[in-house]
Formats: sequence, C-alpha cells, structure tokens
Amino acid sequence: MSGAEAVLRTAVSSGIDTCFANPGTTELAIVTALGRVRELRPVLGLFEGVCAGAADGYARMTGRPALGLYHLGPGFANSLANQHNARRALTSMVNLIGDHATWHLGSDPPLASDIDAVAGWAGHVLRITDADEAAATMAAAIAKATSGAGRVTSVVLPADCAESETTQPVASAALGTRAPVPPARIEKIAVAMRRPKAAVVSGGAHLSEVSVRALGRIREATGCAVWSTRTARVEMGRSLPAVEELPYFPEPARRRLDGLEVCVLAGTAEPITFFGYEGQPSNLLPDTCERVVLAEPDDDVEAALVGLADALDAGGSSWTEPDPLEVAAGALNPESLGRSLALSLPEGCIVVYEALTSGLPFRVDALAARPFTLLNILGGAIGGGLPTAVGAATGCPDRPVVALQADGSAMYTIQALWTAAHEDLDLTVVLCNNRKYRILETELERAGIDEPGPAVRSLIDLSDPDLDFVALAAGLGVPGVRVTEAEALTTELERSYATPGPRLIDAIL
Amino acid sequence: MSGAEAVLRTAVSSGIDTCFANPGTTELAIVTALGRVRELRPVLGLFEGVCAGAADGYARMTGRPALGLYHLGPGFANSLANQHNARRALTSMVNLIGDHATWHLGSDPPLASDIDAVAGWAGHVLRITDADEAAATMAAAIAKATSGAGRVTSVVLPADCAESETTQPVASAALGTRAPVPPARIEKIAVAMRRPKAAVVSGGAHLSEVSVRALGRIREATGCAVWSTRTARVEMGRSLPAVEELPYFPEPARRRLDGLEVCVLAGTAEPITFFGYEGQPSNLLPDTCERVVLAEPDDDVEAALVGLADALDAGGSSWTEPDPLEVAAGALNPESLGRSLALSLPEGCIVVYEALTSGLPFRVDALAARPFTLLNILGGAIGGGLPTAVGAATGCPDRPVVALQADGSAMYTIQALWTAAHEDLDLTVVLCNNRKYRILETELERAGIDEPGPAVRSLIDLSDPDLDFVALAAGLGVPGVRVTEAEALTTELERSYATPGPRLIDAIL
Repeated sequence: MSGAEAVLRTAVSSGIDTCFANPGTTELAIVTALGRVRELRPVLGLFEGVCAGAADGYARMTGRPALGLYHLGPGFANSLANQHNARRALTSMVNLIGDHATWHLGSDPPLASDIDAVAGWAGHVLRITDADEAAATMAAAIAKATSGAGRVTSVVLPADCAESETTQPVASAALGTRAPVPPARIEKIAVAMRRPKAAVVSGGAHLSEVSVRALGRIREATGCAVWSTRTARVEMGRSLPAVEELPYFPEPARRRLDGLEVCVLAGTAEPITFFGYEGQPSNLLPDTCERVVLAEPDDDVEAALVGLADALDAGGSSWTEPDPLEVAAGALNPESLGRSLALSLPEGCIVVYEALTSGLPFRVDALAARPFTLLNILGGAIGGGLPTAVGAATGCPDRPVVALQADGSAMYTIQALWTAAHEDLDLTVVLCNNRKYRILETELERAGIDEPGPAVRSLIDLSDPDLDFVALAAGLGVPGVRVTEAEALTTELERSYATPGPRLIDAIL
Repeated sequence: MSGAEAVLRTAVSSGIDTCFANPGTTELAIVTALGRVRELRPVLGLFEGVCAGAADGYARMTGRPALGLYHLGPGFANSLANQHNARRALTSMVNLIGDHATWHLGSDPPLASDIDAVAGWAGHVLRITDADEAAATMAAAIAKATSGAGRVTSVVLPADCAESETTQPVASAALGTRAPVPPARIEKIAVAMRRPKAAVVSGGAHLSEVSVRALGRIREATGCAVWSTRTARVEMGRSLPAVEELPYFPEPARRRLDGLEVCVLAGTAEPITFFGYEGQPSNLLPDTCERVVLAEPDDDVEAALVGLADALDAGGSSWTEPDPLEVAAGALNPESLGRSLALSLPEGCIVVYEALTSGLPFRVDALAARPFTLLNILGGAIGGGLPTAVGAATGCPDRPVVALQADGSAMYTIQALWTAAHEDLDLTVVLCNNRKYRILETELERAGIDEPGPAVRSLIDLSDPDLDFVALAAGLGVPGVRVTEAEALTTELERSYATPGPRLIDAIL
C-alpha cells in the first residue's frame, strides 16, 4: 500500500473514523487513499478553520481523537486559530499536513514555507521522511495526541512519501490515559477542606456528570463554594448540581472569590483574568488564599473529585431542582434570548457557546434548563463556535446541536454552514445579531471612553452595511429565518429541533 | 503621547496612510490612538485574512508600505495565508500585532501563544518592550519592510507598552531602495544575448510599463524569446509588447523553453514547476541552458532591463497592436468568459487574478485588452484574490478593479465583500462558478484517475448544496447578479463599470 494509505489505516486501527479535510494538490495521494479506506469518513470544509474547529468539537463529543487534513503550510495556517482553541481545550487532535515532494522542496516553490514552525505553534510535530516510516510515525502522533487529557499533534507527510509503496505493517497507536491522583493527596485535601471559606474550582477538558455530582456532594458536605473556570465541555442543567463559571470580567470574579482561605484546584490552573487590566493583578484568588492542587488538567479529574467526595464522607447529592423559569416575552434582548433558549433546549442536546456579551444571561438560565452538554471555546480565538458545532453534530447525529453564536465571531468561519448543509447536520444556529463588536464597546466603556469618535466607531460597528445572516445562510445552503421577538424565537427554535438538517435563526437584538 | 500613538505617528511620518484592521481588547490603546491620528485611515476587515490581502493589494498598487492591525497570536494567525502571499510577492507590509500586557503574560492567559514564532513564519519580527522604544522600533520595522523590493515585517506591541506615555520623539523610517545592477554585468549579458536560442525570463514584484517596453526592445533587437514567471504586478494590454507568463503545468512550460541555450533572469529565480511531479525535474530550463542573472528580485529590475536594451542598441519598440478580438457569444465557458472580460476591460483598470483553471483563456486574451494592471497571487495560498482586490480598490479609488475569482478560492476570504461594501469600493467580482475544485479534478486526471469514487468526489465537489454567490454577496451588502451567457456577462460588466460601488457577477460555467 502507499505511505498515505498506511497513515490512514493506522488512524483507523487506532480508533479514528472521520477526517475533516481541505486538501490540495500535494495531498492527492492522501485523497485517493481516502477513497480506498472506507472506514474513514471524509468531511469537506471550505476553509481550514472549519476543519480544525470541527475536529475539535468531534473529538470532545465522541472521546475519539479527530483527524484533519490540510494543504501545506498556508492551508494549515488557515486552521491555526482553531488549533489554538483545541490546544487550550486539551483536545485529542491529529493534523495530517501534506508537503511538497522531498526532492522538490529545494527549489523553493511558491507554496513552500516552514511547515514545522507553523505546526509547532499549534502543538507537537512529527515528520515522515520515507513511506516505510508512515505507519509508525502516525501511530506515535496518535499516541501523543491522546496523552493526558489530549494534545494537538501534527504529522507532515511529503507528497512523494505519501505516493510511495511501503510493505511496513499498519500500526495501532498505544492510546494515552490520564494519570490517577494519589489517594494520600486526596486525603490531605479532605482535611484542608474542613477549614471555613474553602472553594473548589474545577475546569479543564471536561466537567462530566460524575464530576458535577461529586462537586455537589463536596459542597453539601463542607459548605464550600464551587466554581468552574471556562471548561471545554460541561454537563449541566436542572437535574445536576449548579456549578457556575466564574464571571468573565475581573471585578465580579474577584467578588466571588473574596475572603477565600483555601482553594482546591481540580483540573484547572488557578483562575486568572482573561486580559490584563491596569492596576489589577492577573490572579483572581486573594493573595492570602492557600492554593491546593487536587488534580492537574491531565490527571483523572473525575476520579479525584469522586475520591474527594468519598473522603469527606459526603452523602448522595440531594440537589433540589431549581424552580421553573418564567417565559420571556416581547422584544429580543440578551435576557429574553437567553431565557427563550434555556426554556426550549431539548434534553440531551449540545450547546456550543460563542456569544460572549449577548449570551451571558443564557449562562445563568442554563442552570435551570433540561440537562444538556455545553461546549466552550477555550482558547478565546474567535471563530470557534460554528466549526465546533459542525464537529459536535457530525459526531453525535442523535443529539440536536445548538450554536449560540455572536454575529461578529460568526464571520470568521461562516463557511462552516456549508458543511452543515452538505452533511445534513441537525444544527440550529442562534445568531445573536447586535451589529457590533459589543465586547470592544464594553472594553472601551470600561476604559472610560463612552463616546468614541468616528475612526474608533468604524472599528467596532458592523451596521454599514448590516450583515444579512439569512442571506448568508441561504448562500451556503442553510435555511434561515429572522426573529425580533422572544415568542417568535421560541417558535422557531421548536420548529428547528423538530426538523432534521441545519437552520439559522437570525435573532435581532 | 502613548506608545501606541508614537507607533502610529511614526507610520504616518514614514508615508503610511491606511491601516487594515481587525483589533481586539489587547489593541484598545491602538484603536483609541487611531481616533487621534487622523492621517491614518482605518479600514475594518471582518476576518484577518482580508486585512492582510488588502494590505498586500494596497501596497502593490500605491507603492507605499501597508499597515495591518491584528489581535494577538490567533488573530494574526488568521492572516498568515495572505502574509505568505505578500512575502512571495515581495510586498512592503508592516503588521502591528497587539500582545497581552507584559506583566500578564506570565499567567499564561487563554489567548497567549508564541506570537514571535507565528509572526516569524511570515517575515521579520520586532518586539516593543517599553513605550520609549515604540517609535524607533516602528521606524526600524518600516525600514526593514521597504528593503529591497519589499518585505513582510511584524511589530509586536504589548498592551501596557501601547498604553504607557512616552516622551520619545516620533521617528521617520529610512525607506529602503533597490540596488542598481552594475553596468559591467549588463554589458556582459548583452554579449551573451547575441547567441542564438536566448530568452529573457522576467518576474518578481513588478513588471512595469517601462520594463515591458524594454523587454519588447530586447526581443526586437535579438530575436530572443521573452517570458515571465508569475509576477506580483504586471502592466499589460494591447499597446504594450506581449510578455506571456510561462504555463502553469510543467509539460507546456517545458516545451516553451525547450532548446534554449541561454536564459537571462530578470527579477526572478529560474522557472520551476509549481508542484513536484513524479519523474519530472523541478527546474523547467534545459540542463544544458546557461543561466545568467541580470537582476535579483530585490535589485532595480526596471533599470537593468532598460540598460540591457540600451546595451543591445535596441531601437524604440515597434510593437504592433494585435488584431481586435472577436466577440464571444452563447453559453459561458472559460473561453467565452475570458473573451468577454478581455473585451470589456476599461483602460487603466486593475484585474486581480485568482481563477487558476477557469481564468486561463483570459490570460491569453488579456494581451489584446485595453492596457490594464494585472495582480497575481504570488504565493499560491488560496484566498488572496478578493482581499487583494479590496486593497487595490482602496488604494486606487479612480481605477475600476475587477476580481477574476474562482468559486472555491472565493470561499476562503468571502468576508472581503463586506469591506468592499463598507468602503463603497469600485470593485467588480467576476465569480467563475464551476461548482468544484477543478484544479484537483485536473490533477487527478493527470494522475490517471478519471473516475474517482464517491469519497474522493466528495472532496472536490462543491455542488451539494450549490453555493449561491448572489445570496452570499447580498448577505455582505454587495449587489449581485447571475449570468449564464457571454452576452449577459458583457452587459453586466459594462453596467458594473458604469456604476459606483461593488458588484458581484456570478458567472455560471
């Protein structure tokens, strides 16, 4: 078989079943090998950022490493923002990057670049230099990608190595595992937790249902506070103990943590501000608060939290479901949008969140929604939402997926909608349309600039011309509808959940 | 003034007047400084690849270095494909990249990454570590960006250095120049040119009108062949001597150069194949052909070509205009599209070419069009066309701009259309809509695969669903129309040239 086929068959034998791809001429041997390796489903993205975000969402939701296929350095470069998000989310992701034939590189063709440098920015890089190395190198990359909670790993495959025949056998990667937390550490922390003014701050790759229930038990047993930092995947909803995320802005976040004496960190580094604000420290915890690490992000956080709950002799969780939310009515605003969405969510759905300012009220109401999975964009690189939603819907065809998506950030990877149509994914996009980069406006207000001049306004205003997201969706093969009232949003959400295939709801705020 | 203002005022005093921007929170001090530095026009892109391509087109058409503003590593990463194109085009471009406050970086916030590595992939990088260095560092970056034919250069400006006050004076960059070619070299080459079977192959950053006329004189004086490699900017049309670009595929390119005994290289490396093809050498020139370098890409190519023509005692060019082209009629195909476009082009317009397979017939007919400027995407990174056209139209408001744009590549940076609407640019997009990645299909045919299976087809087919470019344009505020016949294309082209503002013509092939 060819080197390309050896790479793909090694992926299959290591549990990979989907390839999010945007190939070019240097990947022709890989493309034709994809035609022979039926166990791998190719999913085309019209832009590489779509492929990377989709691979991220797919891997997070299936628990299997995701494969992406990219064209040389510039093609891979287009995926970098979502590679960054995947790196921060500790997602198991393998990028297969085609390169020029080894003998052609010396002539410095137009598309040549330092692929290893650009792939190294995203994560670990391995390079195949001979078809006979193809399977073993791919297996090593998959092993690396599944180490700890997960890693972004890239394999560079030159065209001649992809084309050449190899007799080396297909390999199977030794998949990584998470390290268990030593019981002695858990016991010690259980003692520390007996102090007043304690908190557990959880986070990292996944706040599973088991983890959330353990956090609820710990809170009940000790009276401690429980928070999360922004977490890649969170199970939440009315039947689960509430684990609120620390607020985005430093002042309210610091108020939550004020006076803490001990903070147990479970799967997350200690909470910090997203950006640096003059006169405010980066760390959100009080200086006097003792930091205690229960589990590093790569450790088995879930088992550690259950172990801590057990060590505290915590009973079964007696979580009382919150009162039902009141229905919102009238003109759409962030509050009524969040309420309508939270009330409508079908049990077991997946919500991908990239609506920093417009989505905040939803984050609160979501605690009272039917149980669902929330995916966050962990690296903060804009344009993660729609692609991640596409990947989640690809990986979980039986679960409705909702993308709660801001307008500004939607425009970085709007091409994702075509893949949703192409693959007939059950995806509902709630487009929060406020016609501006509201976060920049907010930050200007925070900096005391309430009335920016025309030059500054021109950099935060998206209303000249207005973006017509219904037209954009139609152009990409996705039906859409515009709503301005909460009742209409609810009606359209329910219609979309009941209808297979993708749909965009342009929610005018 | 603030460090940010010192940077911007240094840009202004070095001849920069436009800033293609997609800023975020870490660039807030730069954004507010843009409000105070009225000499700098901010142009918003909804995606960073738009900003970089626009800066490239702007710099190529105005001859002034272009400025881009980017948000941290991930934001800048989104611009990399077009940074690559600018690097290959030898464009003078300065990227201003915001970073976290220096004191915040140590806490490894979510958006932190190795900016220097990702910017280093694109070109030279300088980092400001104190507001007092801001002006001098920016001046050094602009000097670097204008060295030789031009360079991509990045300046990293942390948020605290941007905010802090400085008393250091605004600087002016010492702009670079192109090195003159020694007369002795020109004389020696004039002698070599007397041999039979000689050719001049030109290329690089700019084939100016003066260069093209000099090439015509050299050809007339010696009977040599004259070719160009893909060149960033070319002046062409019926009143100028024809300088054809070497064909894209290796077989026809090699046929053009077959039997050459001496090849004079003017502003270009020796011609090579775009990709490596098994069994074919990378170099297109015969092994026995003597290579003679008249001018390196960074040298003063124009003066060298004029010098060579003079050294050959070449007379004034007696170029005879080609016969008028016959009008095309009937269903659109690449031939009738190219013909209709070539016949319609207004004198002095700018054509940005990113239509590799559908645009080839235009390249031939263009030699008989009214004189115009052609901009090529030099690095081969897909998604350069629309942004470059936006930048060219921004820089040359008095010249109609046409983007001859393939459908597949349009989808990488379709967001450029919004900036065209926002800035009311006089831009006509001719969208070559063949509903597939035709270049991949061609390469598969070349590899002997005429009937790829469904998995392979799914990676080259863009027809499920069809992209509706008229709807996409409408969504981005640009009026559009669909045409299927050559006559209708001509009518719509003329309507667009006569109407201010942007317009998209979806040409169904």
